[in-house]
Amino acid sequence: MSGSNSVDRDLRRRAEAVIPGGMYGHQSVALLPDDYPQFFASGEGAWITDVDGRRYLDFMCAYGPSLFGYAHPGIDAAYARRLGQGDVLTGPSPLMVELAEAMVAMVSHADWAMFCKNGTDATTMAMMAARAQTGRKTIVLARGAYHGAAPWCTPRPGGTTAEDRANQVFCAYNDIASLEAAVASAGDDLAAIFAAPFRHDAFVDQAAPDPAYARRARDLADERGAMLVVDDVRAGFRVVRDCSWEAIGVRPDLSTWGKCIANGHPISALLGNDRARSGAASIYVTGSFWYAGAAMAAGLETLKLVRETDYLERIQTLGERLRAGLADRASAAGFGFRQTGPATMPLFLFDDDPDLRKGFCWSSAMLAHGVYVHPWHNMFLCAAMNDADIDFALDAAEQSFQTLKMQAHDLPPVEKLAFLAAR
Amino acid sequence: MSGSNSVDRDLRRRAEAVIPGGMYGHQSVALLPDDYPQFFASGEGAWITDVDGRRYLDFMCAYGPSLFGYAHPGIDAAYARRLGQGDVLTGPSPLMVELAEAMVAMVSHADWAMFCKNGTDATTMAMMAARAQTGRKTIVLARGAYHGAAPWCTPRPGGTTAEDRANQVFCAYNDIASLEAAVASAGDDLAAIFAAPFRHDAFVDQAAPDPAYARRARDLADERGAMLVVDDVRAGFRVVRDCSWEAIGVRPDLSTWGKCIANGHPISALLGNDRARSGAASIYVTGSFWYAGAAMAAGLETLKLVRETDYLERIQTLGERLRAGLADRASAAGFGFRQTGPATMPLFLFDDDPDLRKGFCWSSAMLAHGVYVHPWHNMFLCAAMNDADIDFALDAAEQSFQTLKMQAHDLPPVEKLAFLAAR
Repeated sequence: MSGSNSVDRDLRRRAEAVIPGGMYGHQSVALLPDDYPQFFASGEGAWITDVDGRRYLDFMCAYGPSLFGYAHPGIDAAYARRLGQGDVLTGPSPLMVELAEAMVAMVSHADWAMFCKNGTDATTMAMMAARAQTGRKTIVLARGAYHGAAPWCTPRPGGTTAEDRANQVFCAYNDIASLEAAVASAGDDLAAIFAAPFRHDAFVDQAAPDPAYARRARDLADERGAMLVVDDVRAGFRVVRDCSWEAIGVRPDLSTWGKCIANGHPISALLGNDRARSGAASIYVTGSFWYAGAAMAAGLETLKLVRETDYLERIQTLGERLRAGLADRASAAGFGFRQTGPATMPLFLFDDDPDLRKGFCWSSAMLAHGVYVHPWHNMFLCAAMNDADIDFALDAAEQSFQTLKMQAHDLPPVEKLAFLAAR
Repeated sequence: MSGSNSVDRDLRRRAEAVIPGGMYGHQSVALLPDDYPQFFASGEGAWITDVDGRRYLDFMCAYGPSLFGYAHPGIDAAYARRLGQGDVLTGPSPLMVELAEAMVAMVSHADWAMFCKNGTDATTMAMMAARAQTGRKTIVLARGAYHGAAPWCTPRPGGTTAEDRANQVFCAYNDIASLEAAVASAGDDLAAIFAAPFRHDAFVDQAAPDPAYARRARDLADERGAMLVVDDVRAGFRVVRDCSWEAIGVRPDLSTWGKCIANGHPISALLGNDRARSGAASIYVTGSFWYAGAAMAAGLETLKLVRETDYLERIQTLGERLRAGLADRASAAGFGFRQTGPATMPLFLFDDDPDLRKGFCWSSAMLAHGVYVHPWHNMFLCAAMNDADIDFALDAAEQSFQTLKMQAHDLPPVEKLAFLAAR
């Protein structure tokens, strides 16, 4: 039974009938190895169980939301308690004010907060607030950076128009000359410079922000009277207990948050300083569930854990042990194995692997050994992981490097990633 | 104590510091009478309690999400049970397939479903799917219709650009000649015709859809190879147990859902037929929490109640009793009092009341008598209401019409709605 994926296959067949393409968005497995499960039955702590009963140590953490582990008793109890008093009502509850106060107290640059549901809501609101504040339209973005999936920013063009992408100028992340050129081309119409806290693009090595680049972005925004936006939806609270660029001493005007601020309960946020307040107050943005209390109760509980526990030091230490252990094992097996990104948000790529066939083979072997890794997207550690989990992952990795070594000379091309070779 | 609003006032002061403008979006009370509370402590069934301890029979139902009542034990238990197994995971749970199957089985025009979080997500995805399907850009919308709060559709221009509103042509709702002219002006670029299920614009009388208008919209879409979209985010399941235009025999290609499909738990949906499937499969849309199981479990439980109970007939009967009773009382007091919209989603306006000063006075009196009505937005009935609640509302109304009668000759202008008189 444990080798069967019959439940997953049956669900995929049913999904094919009632969901376009069988699945959509970032949780579609269309671009993952064929043996990756599409559907999961449950999650607990750092582990997930697929619908065929196989358990995995999960280095995706739901693509970020799980910071303290799945089905966290304390956080979920706060959510459920608030459900008992009513969740969405005809107005917000006091929890909205408390959560705004808590975020503002924790994030150095922030004087105010607005809550929403998707990370994309927060980035879209950042763009609108910056345009309203400055009375200008042009935004500068780094080429390839993910800022959400609305028509203005979704990474694939299907269903979008040229007008959706108007008033955007692109630069190369960490390239000061390119940033300066983009800002110059915006002329006197620069509304905002958007920045990822580090380069966490898919399919490529991650890159820490060059502090000189971050400072130049800040200075250029100041010179031009524009807003600097740090999009911390993905990285928030996995780099520092503050906006991620606080670690390099640069404070944005606006920052966007989501994913793990309520440990996976649905809430996101736009934070801003007083320079950006009147613009933010002038935009009309809303959603049916934005004022609901339960996710805010879970957020307050999550922020308490962020403030009062050593979760960050623990996942940094675990991430460094994992990184060192993987480096040793890859090297012993003779592979060039690049680990980039913060230790808490690693991405793994093999040298000389343009269509990721080595990555697919190794990741599939990890999966077979009970460790869920992603072959081309940054991963996430969570505070429910422990040393035994890292040992488990390293044992799986050692065996997976051996599997790859045996098969490396004869790996089939990865047809579904053929587009990568064309880049 | 019961007359004090000191807790609300204190929360507003704190909110003013940490939320731009003190509050934003549709749950800001900025355009409501000054005595309306901004913050609520709890909700149970059809009743809400504000932070100063006053209880109200709530005819807003959280602006729609509460269809079976606040803190519904059965629906919330389904949510909490799923929380215990993990909510957001590294992939969807089988509940996503089950919910898609349930929606498709209930909504006649639909062959597939995609889930998201905001109503605005669903309408934006409808626009993208229609553009992808047709390879065209222009959408026809009714002037003044609300389809969400993204840059392309938000009702106020702050922070939006002309390009955000490109490729849009407007017509007058229920005006066939105007619709035909809008479609003609789109030439060979018509991607979609959007329609509200009935005219539920704010500040004006609601209007049932003219079946001839709806049929013409369907025919025009067919002639031009465009998509017909019915935006049922607000009205879904309060008109029929199907897409609302099924009641007049017109099936769209795409329909959008939200608010009450999980009785207020955060989930929305785009539904479509096979004509629209490949376009929908080609767009990249996603969100961190879109695949989470708990709201889907609550959705399945809600849909079961929609299918298996007489909730709809009950709220229709209650709504008709309310309507008849209010008409009698308004008439006895000598007021021209217009009640429009479906009985389950009424809107009340007084004759000869351009800045709504009568409406504000009467609504404030209703509030003081423990009934929460809205002076300019459509309201909602829920299945937790009963005959005693309607009696309670009618008693409050009788007294409130008397209050208005005493004050009507000397009402102050409503400064905050002065823009209405300028229309």
